[in-house]
Amino acid sequence: MSDDTDQLRRKVVKMTGAVGMSALLSGPINVFASESNAKIQSRGYAAFDESGILKPWKFERRAVGDSDILIDIKYASICHSDIHQEKGHWGKQQYPQVPGHEMVGIVAAVGKNVTKFKVGDRAGVGCMVGNHHHHHDHDEEQYNADTIFTYGFPDDRSPTGISQGGYSNNIVVEDHFAVHIPDNVSFQEAVPLLCAGITTYSPLMRADIKPGMKVGIAGIGGLGHLAVKIAVSKGAEVYAFTTSPSKVKDILAFGAKEAIVVDDLAKLNQYRGQLDYLLSTIPYDYNVAAYAAVVKPYGTFTQVGMPINSEVTVSALNLAFARVNFNASLIGGMKETQEVVNYCADNKVLPQIQMIKAEQINDAWENVVNKKARYRYVIDASTF
Amino acid sequence: MSDDTDQLRRKVVKMTGAVGMSALLSGPINVFASESNAKIQSRGYAAFDESGILKPWKFERRAVGDSDILIDIKYASICHSDIHQEKGHWGKQQYPQVPGHEMVGIVAAVGKNVTKFKVGDRAGVGCMVGNHHHHHDHDEEQYNADTIFTYGFPDDRSPTGISQGGYSNNIVVEDHFAVHIPDNVSFQEAVPLLCAGITTYSPLMRADIKPGMKVGIAGIGGLGHLAVKIAVSKGAEVYAFTTSPSKVKDILAFGAKEAIVVDDLAKLNQYRGQLDYLLSTIPYDYNVAAYAAVVKPYGTFTQVGMPINSEVTVSALNLAFARVNFNASLIGGMKETQEVVNYCADNKVLPQIQMIKAEQINDAWENVVNKKARYRYVIDASTF
Ligand SMILES: NC(=O)c1ccc[n+]([C@@H]2O[C@H](COP(=O)([O-])OP(=O)(O)OC[C@H]3O[C@@H](n4cnc5c(N)ncnc54)[C@H](OP(=O)(O)O)[C@@H]3O)[C@@H](O)[C@H]2O)c1
Ligand SMILES: NC(=O)c1ccc[n+]([C@@H]2O[C@H](COP(=O)([O-])OP(=O)(O)OC[C@H]3O[C@@H](n4cnc5c(N)ncnc54)[C@H](OP(=O)(O)O)[C@@H]3O)[C@@H](O)[C@H]2O)c1
Ligand SMILES: [Zn+2]
Ligand SMILES: [Zn+2]
Repeated sequence: MSDDTDQLRRKVVKMTGAVGMSALLSGPINVFASESNAKIQSRGYAAFDESGILKPWKFERRAVGDSDILIDIKYASICHSDIHQEKGHWGKQQYPQVPGHEMVGIVAAVGKNVTKFKVGDRAGVGCMVGNHHHHHDHDEEQYNADTIFTYGFPDDRSPTGISQGGYSNNIVVEDHFAVHIPDNVSFQEAVPLLCAGITTYSPLMRADIKPGMKVGIAGIGGLGHLAVKIAVSKGAEVYAFTTSPSKVKDILAFGAKEAIVVDDLAKLNQYRGQLDYLLSTIPYDYNVAAYAAVVKPYGTFTQVGMPINSEVTVSALNLAFARVNFNASLIGGMKETQEVVNYCADNKVLPQIQMIKAEQINDAWENVVNKKARYRYVIDASTF
Repeated sequence: MSDDTDQLRRKVVKMTGAVGMSALLSGPINVFASESNAKIQSRGYAAFDESGILKPWKFERRAVGDSDILIDIKYASICHSDIHQEKGHWGKQQYPQVPGHEMVGIVAAVGKNVTKFKVGDRAGVGCMVGNHHHHHDHDEEQYNADTIFTYGFPDDRSPTGISQGGYSNNIVVEDHFAVHIPDNVSFQEAVPLLCAGITTYSPLMRADIKPGMKVGIAGIGGLGHLAVKIAVSKGAEVYAFTTSPSKVKDILAFGAKEAIVVDDLAKLNQYRGQLDYLLSTIPYDYNVAAYAAVVKPYGTFTQVGMPINSEVTVSALNLAFARVNFNASLIGGMKETQEVVNYCADNKVLPQIQMIKAEQINDAWENVVNKKARYRYVIDASTF
């Protein structure tokens, strides 16, 4: 997918090197440099209650602080987590709340301590935007109690009291939590890497995927289809477990060795004890132990899907019979996020996307819930 | 605890070497040798419905087959599994059903192919009694699909159609599924080793418990108190998590370094990420991830408690934060069952027991459910 306009503008911005110019090009941004204390005027789509119906909303973001960057968002994509959180699946929320934790754009302003980015850089933001104590010495920031997640998270510095996400025309984040988007990938194809990419890449790397390993992926949606592609790119023999017969052809085209339609859990029996590793993205409670049984005894099964209250039901008896280690994984650290973006750009391991306008978000959410997305919706941020 | 009468009888039986003599001494057993085709007359306590109220019951067992031994049961002990299963916690049952999968006694008859035991031997039986295809080449028999568990399991050879357990005066089992009870342990103290012992020993051995390792045990009942003792005997620093303040003194006497009363899950926070390994015997659904968090990142947590439908609820989010591998374990193989019996006998790692008569079983079950058992009830089989 081409990204000519962005590439072009980026060049212009780089050439002029002027913050004012960048801001001008980036559209209605009210701050011209990190010296300004002016809050950032933003517009986006927010949820207003647990109905999960999004509507346009104008709001303010904090002024660009010394360690912050302002990003003029070009594209944001839809993660099932957005739906879970706005619908209150994971707990009560403060509204209005702008979801979105996959976004890419152009750096439009930088704070005075920022060296990682300069105005005009291509940047991406995922699920984390800051740290209450600016501790970034850890490379698994997602497990740090002080980390501020991208939306709906208490954040004193935010005029709304909570972090507001990427379904918006801009965002202010600590530079540590943005990654560079290399030139060899389009913005539109890079954007899902910021959550779906890192969330699947990180556990696959921990599982030490090697050529010939038999790797299972359960739930072939936004995360799952990228997981298939990443595992295939690492040389794994991939077994994709889907509940959607209509995805089989795509899955095989992604390079999977087999696409298994699990219309009945008994379908899993013929894979019993066969796989070296299994990753599940399934977003609602399901029979974990039935899936675990496809893994070889003493192998590992990682859950990344985060159902209602994040809870899954595990039959301890069946897990014992499977003798499988079950664990869960949350996105990945910032270092690894940069790594996955580079890896996917270099190896052309890219999501299959569908472009939408802001006004189509509510329909897109419906489609995601109904397993109709193919496979990640990317919102053109100019339509916010 | 002394076992003089048994020891004595055992000597007599050994001396005479006579099957008839043994059967005579063993009480009302109607078979005199494996050549006989006579079914075995048994009496025990059975559940008749999901109320879980046990009543005396007379029934028949299969005749002693060529690979079978007949054991004159001396003691049987109460496992929480007996309660779960008879109350239908794990699925519908066929009644009447005699529970009990911890039993010891004297071999009263042997089939013509049996070399492992001779009449008069001290023998114990745990959770398994046979295999539909007589395959015993595997040393994790508990995970073999053909294994017949001790009670309530479909068994064509049983006159009642299901296996009938150890709350009884005798049992017929394939010799492979009985273990020797060494002379240096009393019958009464050996009996809980057949399930509680092996179920905790096996995962502790797999966790490769070494001196100085920090090992947590959650739920200090029949299994848990033995787990504490076994881990202590292996040199571990043991952290016992209990919901019963009245058990603290005992737990410290068992050698635990700390007994933590978890009256509030927040109590677990101060142990966050501290332990090398955790074993949970908790028999009802609970917050698995909250307990998992006491284990060091990338450590392991094993569930042996088997709640209603064996199901536990796991917060994938909190499990991700803990970065702990969760697995489950089912008893242990026959080789390891003999090993734990020998190990516990040799090292005096023995359960704290309470002796009861058959007529006290129903009260004892109540006490187990109400966490009042201290810590394993042992039934004198002469009272059946
Ligand atoms: N751990 C983390 O850090 C992290 C990060 C991002 C997202 N997540 C979570 O990961 C999950 C997946 O996110 P996503 O954006 O990939 O969602 P998605 O696009 O909706 O994909 C999920 C896929 O799972 C399958 N599925 C859906 N409902 C199911 C059900 N009830 N039973 C069985 N399978 C079902 C469908 O695939 P088939 O049609 O192939 O069956 C669906 O396409 C969500 O719970 C999300 O919150 C977690
Ligand atoms: N996996 C296997 O192969 C296997 C083998 C045998 C038994 N089991 C299962 O293991 C479990 C324990 O058996 P057991 O005979 O040791 O039972 P038990 O004697 O009743 O011990 C269980 C202990 O767990 C704690 N507990 C009880 N209810 C609880 C609750 N609702 N929440 C939190 N803690 C609770 C109590 O300890 P505190 O007072 O210290 O809190 C109780 O003493 C049962 O589910 C049984 O079926 C499994
Ligand atoms: Zn996401
Ligand atoms: Zn038991």
